[in-house]
Amino acid sequence: MAVDSNKLIIFDTTLRDGEQSPGASMTRDEKIRIARQLERLKVDIIEAGFAAASQGDFESIHAISGIIKDATVCSLSRANDKDIARAAEALKPAARKRIHTFLATSPLHMEKKLRMTPDQVFEQAKIAVRYARQFTDDVEFSPEDGSRSDMDFLCRVIEAVIKEGATTINFADTVGYAVPELYGNMLRTLRERIPNSDKAVWSVHCHNDLGMGVANSLAGVMIGGARQVECTINGLGERAGNTALEEIVMAVRTRKDYFNLEIGVDATQIVPTSKLVSQITGFAVQPNKSVVGANAFAHASGIHQDGVLKARDTYEIMRAEDVGWSANKIVLGKLSGRNAFKQRLEELGITMESAADTDAAFIRFKELADRKSEIFDEDIMALVSDEQHSHEHEYYNFVSLTQQSSSASKPVASVVFSMGGKEEICKGEGNGPVDAIVNAIESKVASGAELLLFSVNAITTGTESQGEVTMRLSKAGRIVNGVGADLDIVVASAKAYISALNKLHSKIEKLNPQL
Amino acid sequence: MAVDSNKLIIFDTTLRDGEQSPGASMTRDEKIRIARQLERLKVDIIEAGFAAASQGDFESIHAISGIIKDATVCSLSRANDKDIARAAEALKPAARKRIHTFLATSPLHMEKKLRMTPDQVFEQAKIAVRYARQFTDDVEFSPEDGSRSDMDFLCRVIEAVIKEGATTINFADTVGYAVPELYGNMLRTLRERIPNSDKAVWSVHCHNDLGMGVANSLAGVMIGGARQVECTINGLGERAGNTALEEIVMAVRTRKDYFNLEIGVDATQIVPTSKLVSQITGFAVQPNKSVVGANAFAHASGIHQDGVLKARDTYEIMRAEDVGWSANKIVLGKLSGRNAFKQRLEELGITMESAADTDAAFIRFKELADRKSEIFDEDIMALVSDEQHSHEHEYYNFVSLTQQSSSASKPVASVVFSMGGKEEICKGEGNGPVDAIVNAIESKVASGAELLLFSVNAITTGTESQGEVTMRLSKAGRIVNGVGADLDIVVASAKAYISALNKLHSKIEKLNPQL
Repeated sequence: MAVDSNKLIIFDTTLRDGEQSPGASMTRDEKIRIARQLERLKVDIIEAGFAAASQGDFESIHAISGIIKDATVCSLSRANDKDIARAAEALKPAARKRIHTFLATSPLHMEKKLRMTPDQVFEQAKIAVRYARQFTDDVEFSPEDGSRSDMDFLCRVIEAVIKEGATTINFADTVGYAVPELYGNMLRTLRERIPNSDKAVWSVHCHNDLGMGVANSLAGVMIGGARQVECTINGLGERAGNTALEEIVMAVRTRKDYFNLEIGVDATQIVPTSKLVSQITGFAVQPNKSVVGANAFAHASGIHQDGVLKARDTYEIMRAEDVGWSANKIVLGKLSGRNAFKQRLEELGITMESAADTDAAFIRFKELADRKSEIFDEDIMALVSDEQHSHEHEYYNFVSLTQQSSSASKPVASVVFSMGGKEEICKGEGNGPVDAIVNAIESKVASGAELLLFSVNAITTGTESQGEVTMRLSKAGRIVNGVGADLDIVVASAKAYISALNKLHSKIEKLNPQL
Repeated sequence: MAVDSNKLIIFDTTLRDGEQSPGASMTRDEKIRIARQLERLKVDIIEAGFAAASQGDFESIHAISGIIKDATVCSLSRANDKDIARAAEALKPAARKRIHTFLATSPLHMEKKLRMTPDQVFEQAKIAVRYARQFTDDVEFSPEDGSRSDMDFLCRVIEAVIKEGATTINFADTVGYAVPELYGNMLRTLRERIPNSDKAVWSVHCHNDLGMGVANSLAGVMIGGARQVECTINGLGERAGNTALEEIVMAVRTRKDYFNLEIGVDATQIVPTSKLVSQITGFAVQPNKSVVGANAFAHASGIHQDGVLKARDTYEIMRAEDVGWSANKIVLGKLSGRNAFKQRLEELGITMESAADTDAAFIRFKELADRKSEIFDEDIMALVSDEQHSHEHEYYNFVSLTQQSSSASKPVASVVFSMGGKEEICKGEGNGPVDAIVNAIESKVASGAELLLFSVNAITTGTESQGEVTMRLSKAGRIVNGVGADLDIVVASAKAYISALNKLHSKIEKLNPQL
């Protein structure tokens, strides 16, 4: 039962399970940016998507497979030949590849969802793993709804798939129902009862519905002997989200005395990664979030604690700079040239698809520098995101707006935007300037979408900061997040609304497995 | 070592430890509103503040003591006669009162902070508890930095204070360094070694720096035998915050099979309480926050999961309505009269200080109803908060504004506000409309404050929603949050900025203990 290794494998699923959060769907370019940053963060495995879910997912995995050098790239797939072949095809360019296949093993799921007998599930799981092994030596198997499955049956299935060559077994707490002691003991029992359990690495995958995702994962490691943790940046994920990568890494690092485990992650990349994911998905991080929240380190936001903080080590268990917090740095300004801009893009790990894209981004950078004297890294990141949202291949494109409001009269706005290449000028009024621009745009578009969520966050400190707006729209059961950034929050709102309309327009159909 | 009771006491410290978050300081009226809501939530103990910290804290505790009927009202106090007498004085009107006194027991804190020998600390703790017992039979003692204290010494101090009449012993993980197993075992050891440990209720108080506040607290309960959990709404608190009340309650409820504990809390009041606290403090809750985040329950935000969600119980472990999520309900409109408005205030647990305040709020309600056809509970809550921020006794008061911006030219704004009773008209320009109004106001006020954080959240869904703006200002080491709500987010920003200026103007000096 002893576990040989003290290396804890970090399996990031921001691009797969994280993306399943309502509204968090990302474009291929956005996924590539995050994947590059995950490689800088030095995660061991990047689950880049679910190849059979959609053409977009397939292309994202394929593109990421061609770019990522150090990390293993993984695709999820159901336990059937078609899905597995599709995953293998998407992963073809990868230096290291993993196929992650899953099949439900609980009575409820087998009967209601799969309509299969336990014996059929047993055979299907074996066939799937055997087939996946034809494409790669690195195959992960997840018994879906494992924690609610019959233990005898689970042992039988897992023993068989390990025999077929599964190298990682992932025990998922799909619905976030686990408590640490029970979850750890369940995993321990499985490992004790399955004769060939030492032939596979055991993995945990916990959701945070009861606020115990981190503790459950670590109980799976300490009690159960797991050596892989599946997690996401900022704990992104459906409902209350997945286990947060940053919390796992810093808990294990800070309490090395107890955990005695090695993690390959470069913690100084945690905060930049968190900001990138939050900015791309439009999922803001609350101030009192562990590690990556604005308040997580008192002094990171310039806070002085009225002299209470006498000695730093009296009250601080981690250092802000160790996880990548740093003051906003002026990196570029009005006089910075194209080379300085390109160099900074490279340093930030941003690769533009073509020279034309770099040129377009540089023009926008100069426009921004004309209006804002100090350009921070966060501004550049927002500018690039914005650039990617306003490619010519988008159906709707923002051009310009004017608006005015006063306490005395109803706000009015006039918006210019293009729709399928044709420029439209529209006017609207509303209860506030944002309502007015939405009414103006809707007077032409008539999408009928419902606004579920609206939020604005400043990208940096100071009133000169750009505002980043997230607007979440719902239409016919589909949820999308639009994101826009500008020095003017009303303009940013118009950009966010148009970005959301583009996402609704793209009509991506995709499967979302529950794992 | 057996613990008799299976009742888990919920000790809410939102108004004390939660308020210590930078920028979360609240006025007396705001604290009263939260205290009333905490009573509706049926928490057992409300820590209403730290009476000796400031005159404002004293008055808040005193006022809350006169209002709260069912819950025990508690004041923190250092372990000295002056603090304890002050706490007792503030608590005088309370039906049930608790004095919570604390003294550091770790070598580092005793030597560096207190400059006392262990024997002096031992004596001081005894004297403090003995003195506190003169005012109430309900006395809690916290050995500050307990988890880093010498076990022998800790046992000696705790045994002595229980002998002096301490009825609750609170073992705090002040810096959020604990892991569940170790923390639970430490508490268990203390309870085993201290001969009179069964004469007190044991309590846990955990911070969330490593994302394990909930699991640590529950390990303290299950392994250590604690029967009180100290926690805050939304996990509000310094750095990564305190243990979240909503997560503790729902973990214990949902996993009753494992915990087998009774909690008196009315869970249907969780979401209304969460919204109230977030709205008053300006600390937004992230969408992927357990229980109270907008995404915590898929269907609460109108989300349909593309047919994946076949049977609700397959994937849901809690029901949204059980924690108080409900669709936004139209409660009032243009034609609603004063009585309907007053009745709704009562139903929401909002008590205005005077008839004049109710009248003022009603006038504002009619103004809002003229601009917005559907008035939701959230609108009324925002309106009352806003009303309380714009009392005549405030130094700065917003009057009106006009602003305009366009993609082509620099935004300009004109703001009318009063300063010490005198009306000022000012103009400004900026990079965006918010920058322009701030520049306009600063042209008269010249506060020189730095803007640390700016965020906007819609109060309800739909573009007709009011926007709630939080602006966090920093000046000479003080941090304040200003909050403002309006249909027009630019107007809301002006209100938020002026609210923050008022807080800076009030110059409250206050002590923040680290516990």
